[in-house]
Amino acid sequence: MTFKEKLHAITQKNTSLVCVGLDSDIAKLPSRVREQADAQFVFNKAIIDATHDLVCAYKPNSAFYEAQGTKGIEALKKTTDYLRSTYPDIPIILDAKRADIGNTNEGYAVFAFDWLGADAITVHPYLGAEALAPFLSREDKCVFVLCRTSNSGSGEFQDLMVGKKPLYHIVAEHVARQWNTKKNCGLVVGATYPEELVTVRHIVDDMPILIPGIGAQGGDIETTVKAGKDETGENALIAASRSILFAGTGADFAQKAREETINLREAINAHRAMS
Amino acid sequence: MTFKEKLHAITQKNTSLVCVGLDSDIAKLPSRVREQADAQFVFNKAIIDATHDLVCAYKPNSAFYEAQGTKGIEALKKTTDYLRSTYPDIPIILDAKRADIGNTNEGYAVFAFDWLGADAITVHPYLGAEALAPFLSREDKCVFVLCRTSNSGSGEFQDLMVGKKPLYHIVAEHVARQWNTKKNCGLVVGATYPEELVTVRHIVDDMPILIPGIGAQGGDIETTVKAGKDETGENALIAASRSILFAGTGADFAQKAREETINLREAINAHRAMS
Repeated sequence: MTFKEKLHAITQKNTSLVCVGLDSDIAKLPSRVREQADAQFVFNKAIIDATHDLVCAYKPNSAFYEAQGTKGIEALKKTTDYLRSTYPDIPIILDAKRADIGNTNEGYAVFAFDWLGADAITVHPYLGAEALAPFLSREDKCVFVLCRTSNSGSGEFQDLMVGKKPLYHIVAEHVARQWNTKKNCGLVVGATYPEELVTVRHIVDDMPILIPGIGAQGGDIETTVKAGKDETGENALIAASRSILFAGTGADFAQKAREETINLREAINAHRAMS
Repeated sequence: MTFKEKLHAITQKNTSLVCVGLDSDIAKLPSRVREQADAQFVFNKAIIDATHDLVCAYKPNSAFYEAQGTKGIEALKKTTDYLRSTYPDIPIILDAKRADIGNTNEGYAVFAFDWLGADAITVHPYLGAEALAPFLSREDKCVFVLCRTSNSGSGEFQDLMVGKKPLYHIVAEHVARQWNTKKNCGLVVGATYPEELVTVRHIVDDMPILIPGIGAQGGDIETTVKAGKDETGENALIAASRSILFAGTGADFAQKAREETINLREAINAHRAMS
């Protein structure tokens, strides 16, 4: 089964475009959880159990685990193992923003796809398709290429004009028209740039677009959904992390996360229906 | 002590511009080493002990450790711990090619600088300086920004013309003129692109340039040294990995690595002297 098939199946089953970002910053965990030996995994398991019927994907961000050293990497591994054994129909996107030269990317592909068992990874475009071959050659996986990132300073290079088009536009074109021969590419476009999202969706047809930037970063839901979905109302993975994970800080944090995810799913679906 | 001061001191002490890349791919280790529980660390320790008086830096590439999961991360940690305790005057560059949005980069900065204790890290430019603040704010460290990478397909985006200049040129200008307020930036330029290296050195004055691509990748030493060094004959970190690490495959692998490093150091120094 390809990533796109898996994504389509879960999107239908859970009627959801919500991708929960497992950015489980240890400093922000509820104190009762934080005190436990295996805090990041305990927290993730509770969040996953409370939201698994509401999402189209989970997206752990590697940085929040690496910050804890081997202990954090172990928690990340336990999280992906738990997801794969308990909820195998939910895609796992490792948000790692990697990219090195070819023979080195092989190591990152093994880490993400084989050791952790992720279904997808995020990568930087700067080194070009030739370098990314160890990712792009994996036809059962998905490679989400950074195109227009959600941060306020993303225009420094991404908006530079190359001829008559900004760089992020060129990146979208290259990925859609040249890199996607195995139909396993996606793009990352921030909800904080809705006009750019419209442009990119136009270029990439029904390619999956991973869209961070709603919630804590301030992207508008209605605009994001309308700009990001494809013609079938799918293939937009709308990522929310802090607004869901840290909706509650007490013993009921998982229940609060569930409520927040339900609200987000409904808010998104309201605008999927409208055309 | 800043990174630049540390680099200058060791460059003088060891009369060397050689940066040994600890790309300790487990599949390539001598079989006697590979069989040991702690193979990557055992190998690195032998290489380090055999070359410590010949180098200006060590550069472990994170991918080769991540490919082994937590076991590999543990070997990486042991390697940096060993370097810091035994050879504290040699800078450690974590070649991790990271870059995420600001609050997330904090996790990577903690991993590289605080947990591993590296003196420098390599990063992607695509998200801009605003996102990289958690790295750029560390004035005692060095942030090596990918500018012109050594891979054959690096021109796909890096050569795109922005007005009258290619993108890699613009990246070099931004880093040198806007990002380097704390004098803690460096650039990465492949030895496989000697003309681009000349251009970049011209732009960045005496900023450290990390130069992979000689040895296995085929960059020419004389051209690289002449193009890469600054006016004092320093601040070019000429990285070699496979050609040194795997110079020998038998019990004498460390001795072979030493001989190869001596040869490389001498070949480089021959062209540092000439002006």
